[in-house]
Amino acid sequence: MAALPPLPPVAYRYSVGSVTVTALPDGTRTIPLPDGFVRNQPQAAVKAALRAAFLPDDQLTIYFNPLLLEIAGRRVLIDTGFGPQAEPSTMGRLHHTLESVGVAAATINTVVISHFHLDHINGLLAADGTPAFPNAQVLVPEREWDFWLDEGAASRAPDAQKPAFANARRVFAAVESHVNRYDWDQEVLPGLTAIGTPGHTPGHTSFMLTSGADRLFIQSDLTNTPYLFVRNPGWHAMFDMDPDLAEASRRRMLEIVAAERLLVAGFHFPFPGAAHLEKDGDGYRFVPVPWVQARG
Amino acid sequence: MAALPPLPPVAYRYSVGSVTVTALPDGTRTIPLPDGFVRNQPQAAVKAALRAAFLPDDQLTIYFNPLLLEIAGRRVLIDTGFGPQAEPSTMGRLHHTLESVGVAAATINTVVISHFHLDHINGLLAADGTPAFPNAQVLVPEREWDFWLDEGAASRAPDAQKPAFANARRVFAAVESHVNRYDWDQEVLPGLTAIGTPGHTPGHTSFMLTSGADRLFIQSDLTNTPYLFVRNPGWHAMFDMDPDLAEASRRRMLEIVAAERLLVAGFHFPFPGAAHLEKDGDGYRFVPVPWVQARG
Repeated sequence: MAALPPLPPVAYRYSVGSVTVTALPDGTRTIPLPDGFVRNQPQAAVKAALRAAFLPDDQLTIYFNPLLLEIAGRRVLIDTGFGPQAEPSTMGRLHHTLESVGVAAATINTVVISHFHLDHINGLLAADGTPAFPNAQVLVPEREWDFWLDEGAASRAPDAQKPAFANARRVFAAVESHVNRYDWDQEVLPGLTAIGTPGHTPGHTSFMLTSGADRLFIQSDLTNTPYLFVRNPGWHAMFDMDPDLAEASRRRMLEIVAAERLLVAGFHFPFPGAAHLEKDGDGYRFVPVPWVQARG
Repeated sequence: MAALPPLPPVAYRYSVGSVTVTALPDGTRTIPLPDGFVRNQPQAAVKAALRAAFLPDDQLTIYFNPLLLEIAGRRVLIDTGFGPQAEPSTMGRLHHTLESVGVAAATINTVVISHFHLDHINGLLAADGTPAFPNAQVLVPEREWDFWLDEGAASRAPDAQKPAFANARRVFAAVESHVNRYDWDQEVLPGLTAIGTPGHTPGHTSFMLTSGADRLFIQSDLTNTPYLFVRNPGWHAMFDMDPDLAEASRRRMLEIVAAERLLVAGFHFPFPGAAHLEKDGDGYRFVPVPWVQARG
């Protein structure tokens, strides 16, 4: 008996009013649970939360879910993943996923970036360092641009952050002629409004997509894995640059989405990356959408 | 801009010890919420339960998830879906799903049937009425066989049930030379034990898959949609032939899987069809597994 062949890449499609949303996994990364992953909790509490979510308590699987929106005939990508990696890799697979769903990179009209961490921006470049989406306008948050591309900020940054500054400079040098900056509280595209949710990074941005009576809150990295940080909005992930500000942004927006029963897309939610959040104590219960098979 | 091409079929793969499990959707059926779908509850309570699960309260989406197990080099299919339908159809898609994951029907060694409802057995036949899995042994529950293929029972059945009797007779006439019957509380294949869970039908069968330290409870139709019947094990679905006996089977097994924190595969769970169940009041909370991208 021959071994089972590997499964093809997956994607997940749903509608928000007249907008077609496709979650396109860039992949996953499974790592041993780092010490201090939650800065303000003992490791035992973190492990207990993982077990309560029926997960192994000695590792983390982090998901990376860029979104493709089709808005009024335009193809819009929100965030780009890690970019092509040395194979085999469980990350940086967006270009494979796009290929598997029959969407050529050259047909992407717009890329919207939520913030400048490498798992969101490095996919702007192809393996050879040229723009991965050669015909796309690249929309970036003004405050993120000002922070990461400021030479003064880069030189004052702690050593641990210097690679992130250098990476942002490298990536945007290659696509700079395509870049336009956007402000918070503006429509960056019809129906897609940028909402400042700083803390994870200084210019970290979420989005509200509105079409007809439907809304989708695209949270970006307002939480990392929902089993820890949706469940416990007061917990601080090691990736948040200003943890208190990140918590304030998180609490403000999660309260709204739970009260209004909004669908939420999370870059780091488990694929397919869309869920409702239900108030439960001081936190929220993560209620993934039931998969609805795309028609035809 | 060309329209987005349709997404290819999906499947979901995970391991239970040394057994590889692949959930292979036969599709979904979305229908207006039938009157009396839950026999012993007013429609308002059913609608409220759907809304509480963030679902529309005027329709139901029913999922159909056959499983492919690779056990010690044997390819084993558990239940077969509706069989090929006139296209386009949202059901009867198992043969497309198998093709998309590179598994030829002729390589299936064994088909295990949980019960004789048409969404489980009709896929035993190809569109031309010949066996869809020509090299497979077909294992069926003894009690189910005795009930549905008994001419006396068929003649005494209420009119509404006569088509199900005729359908079972038609399907098994075409594959009878491949059929072997199994008893409850026996291993039907190494590590796969049949557990009698009657009520939905007289011979309805669930399975415990055990491999090494891992277990998977394959519930078959112990519940229909989990948002109603995992949440409320005392609710009676219109499809259950003996609702009280079905409830007793359901309560008995859900208590065990919740207490032992077992992974459960449900034929009618939303794809990918695997979840943990968490005790909550008189019922259980449905906690779908986070999708883990199959490697390579």
